[in-house]
Amino acid sequence: MSDNSTIKAVGSLRLKKGADRRLRSGHLWIYSNEVDVATTPLKTLSAGSEVVVEDATGKFVAMAVVNPASLICARLYSREKNSYLGQSLIVNRLKQALQFRESYFSKPFYRAFFGDSDLLPGLVVDRFGDYLSVQLTTAAIDQRRDDVIAALDEVFSPKGIVFRNQGPFRQMEGLPESVEVAAGDIPELVELEENNTRFLAPVMTGQKTGWFYDHRINRQQLQKLSKDKTVLDVYSYVGGWGVQAAAAGANSVTCVDVSGDALDLAQQNAELNDYKGQFSCLQGKAIDIMKSLIDAGQTFDVVVLDPPAFIKRKKDQRQGEKAYHQANQLALRLLALGGTLISASCSMHLPQQILMDVVKTAAAHRHRQLQVFSMGGQGPDHPIHPAIPETNYLKAIFARDIQS
Amino acid sequence: MSDNSTIKAVGSLRLKKGADRRLRSGHLWIYSNEVDVATTPLKTLSAGSEVVVEDATGKFVAMAVVNPASLICARLYSREKNSYLGQSLIVNRLKQALQFRESYFSKPFYRAFFGDSDLLPGLVVDRFGDYLSVQLTTAAIDQRRDDVIAALDEVFSPKGIVFRNQGPFRQMEGLPESVEVAAGDIPELVELEENNTRFLAPVMTGQKTGWFYDHRINRQQLQKLSKDKTVLDVYSYVGGWGVQAAAAGANSVTCVDVSGDALDLAQQNAELNDYKGQFSCLQGKAIDIMKSLIDAGQTFDVVVLDPPAFIKRKKDQRQGEKAYHQANQLALRLLALGGTLISASCSMHLPQQILMDVVKTAAAHRHRQLQVFSMGGQGPDHPIHPAIPETNYLKAIFARDIQS
Repeated sequence: MSDNSTIKAVGSLRLKKGADRRLRSGHLWIYSNEVDVATTPLKTLSAGSEVVVEDATGKFVAMAVVNPASLICARLYSREKNSYLGQSLIVNRLKQALQFRESYFSKPFYRAFFGDSDLLPGLVVDRFGDYLSVQLTTAAIDQRRDDVIAALDEVFSPKGIVFRNQGPFRQMEGLPESVEVAAGDIPELVELEENNTRFLAPVMTGQKTGWFYDHRINRQQLQKLSKDKTVLDVYSYVGGWGVQAAAAGANSVTCVDVSGDALDLAQQNAELNDYKGQFSCLQGKAIDIMKSLIDAGQTFDVVVLDPPAFIKRKKDQRQGEKAYHQANQLALRLLALGGTLISASCSMHLPQQILMDVVKTAAAHRHRQLQVFSMGGQGPDHPIHPAIPETNYLKAIFARDIQS
Repeated sequence: MSDNSTIKAVGSLRLKKGADRRLRSGHLWIYSNEVDVATTPLKTLSAGSEVVVEDATGKFVAMAVVNPASLICARLYSREKNSYLGQSLIVNRLKQALQFRESYFSKPFYRAFFGDSDLLPGLVVDRFGDYLSVQLTTAAIDQRRDDVIAALDEVFSPKGIVFRNQGPFRQMEGLPESVEVAAGDIPELVELEENNTRFLAPVMTGQKTGWFYDHRINRQQLQKLSKDKTVLDVYSYVGGWGVQAAAAGANSVTCVDVSGDALDLAQQNAELNDYKGQFSCLQGKAIDIMKSLIDAGQTFDVVVLDPPAFIKRKKDQRQGEKAYHQANQLALRLLALGGTLISASCSMHLPQQILMDVVKTAAAHRHRQLQVFSMGGQGPDHPIHPAIPETNYLKAIFARDIQS
């Protein structure tokens, strides 16, 4: 842990006038056009290295790590001078994050670390008991993979760590994509518990880290609504919603997903739990399956619509919103009178108010009256950084069909 | 229940071109400048009477009740032709609302009816077991007070009904203000239970209906955070937050309110529950008390800031936002390192994002780092009408102080 105790020679990054303001109000990102490149040329800095960030007058702002190749050319990791990004700092950040999770959750199944919001950009850790599924999404963190492994070891003593180093963030940082067991052993499926329901998650092969802990409180809400109901779980993945509905006493649950592997695991997950109703799966594209269910005249008491991000980048906005509209209109046609639609979005580019408009418009199109009785967000293990709107990405609207 | 069975002769209200669009997409309000007054002069219609709303081509849109004296000159109560606003319709609406509350809550303590969101503008009913505290806020509903009483009687068989007919909405409708026992008897204090905590509420003399059920889920969240903590409840009223913190095992709770009567009842409410820590009250203006606590060097593990609406009308926006900033900055100075700030707003004119900015700015001013781990809203007994943004008014930001 020598990395905090000696003063290293590091470069500096001079900001243009006024560019320190957003940082002083809490933000962690520096865009390349905010740097005074005449004074501190970005290209002289090597990717991943620490720099002292200075305002236009040369006054200390914070410590950051750079990536000259990225549009976000630097990210703050500390407001303390002479603080370096190594095992010791990572351990401190992990411990601070863990202390909160442990105070909140009684079992070790949660997002243990959430990048910017836990004040260390580029590091995401999902915990499944003794196993950790990790994403390194910036060049600086990627370079410090050994420090990350050592820090995780020190804080969690895990039996295994997998790096799920994939996705658009790595692409934007110019990093290669891979999945690798970084320490110990990782079983193909790891066990977890969410809202008193048991699951197996495919941490090596599944989506993202293998499991989406972010909807925990929304699925808890679903459980309150499921008893004796017929439930449709569209874009079910491995059954996060549907299996919890079954465990909470749903009369029948139908999961829909394009992945047969995901549905096989959803079925297996249902069987891990004590459930009494029917549980079935329909494999295919969600839109196609919803259309066939409509053609067959089927309706459900509860319809869960939790699609992947239809708007991944700003330029997908229009097409993405159209996709949300289409999916929600189909979902509403499958909703029984008096039923509940749970419409979710994980697109950071789709504000809550737009999703509300999507639901409202679907209702108007179908001549239905809806009443929104809950607006859910991400759980407490996915905290929001108040200065970084992108960290507030998850929405779930609970809308009940009523008569007028 | 003859009011739905015969066809009454009612007037009509012709809309200008395009003015039906918002209504067809779910909205319930008609503004006076949307009416084709050449065809259907508003002044020929008497306040409270039913009208058939027609689009510019004469096509049926909905049934509404009018108030020619109000900026919102008509409000929809039904999408069915020949449907009249009387006991039978009110009973139907109340039953539909009650059915949902009963499915959600195990005990009879909730907002039983929430106006527009439950598809009957102008009627608000809070239930305290056998007692109902009611607000009639439109001319049309006010005229039908006997129908309302009969409907409430039919659905709830209450021991007593109080009309808390006060506030700005009645003023805008040109209605007088009063508090009156409309049926049965009402004790000075009525009992209620929220999140397994017992309270007495002053339904005759307290704020609004006497109790704020809307923060239920946020106070439940507070309970999770209170064990062994020191808690400050600013703008405590009768102790909704503070008493629940005490009941959940807080080490000490301090309530602050300008009303000595409210604080006396907060103390009494604390004693209704089994609590082990200290419970004390400070009477005075919240801003002044916070300043003296700061001067005395005090800090608290949890600070709850739940002020009355600082922005009551659009024109108060700037002053109101300033007041939120001031209160939040003082609150943050009272927050211990590692503590949790719960910052709430019930102003419909203060969007969630602005409250987030208020919290962010307070953090920047005080050189603190905050992490938002929950964004709470109003409970399911205060549903949101997806087409009427004003019905989505309550915000509670849970922010944890962290070190960087």
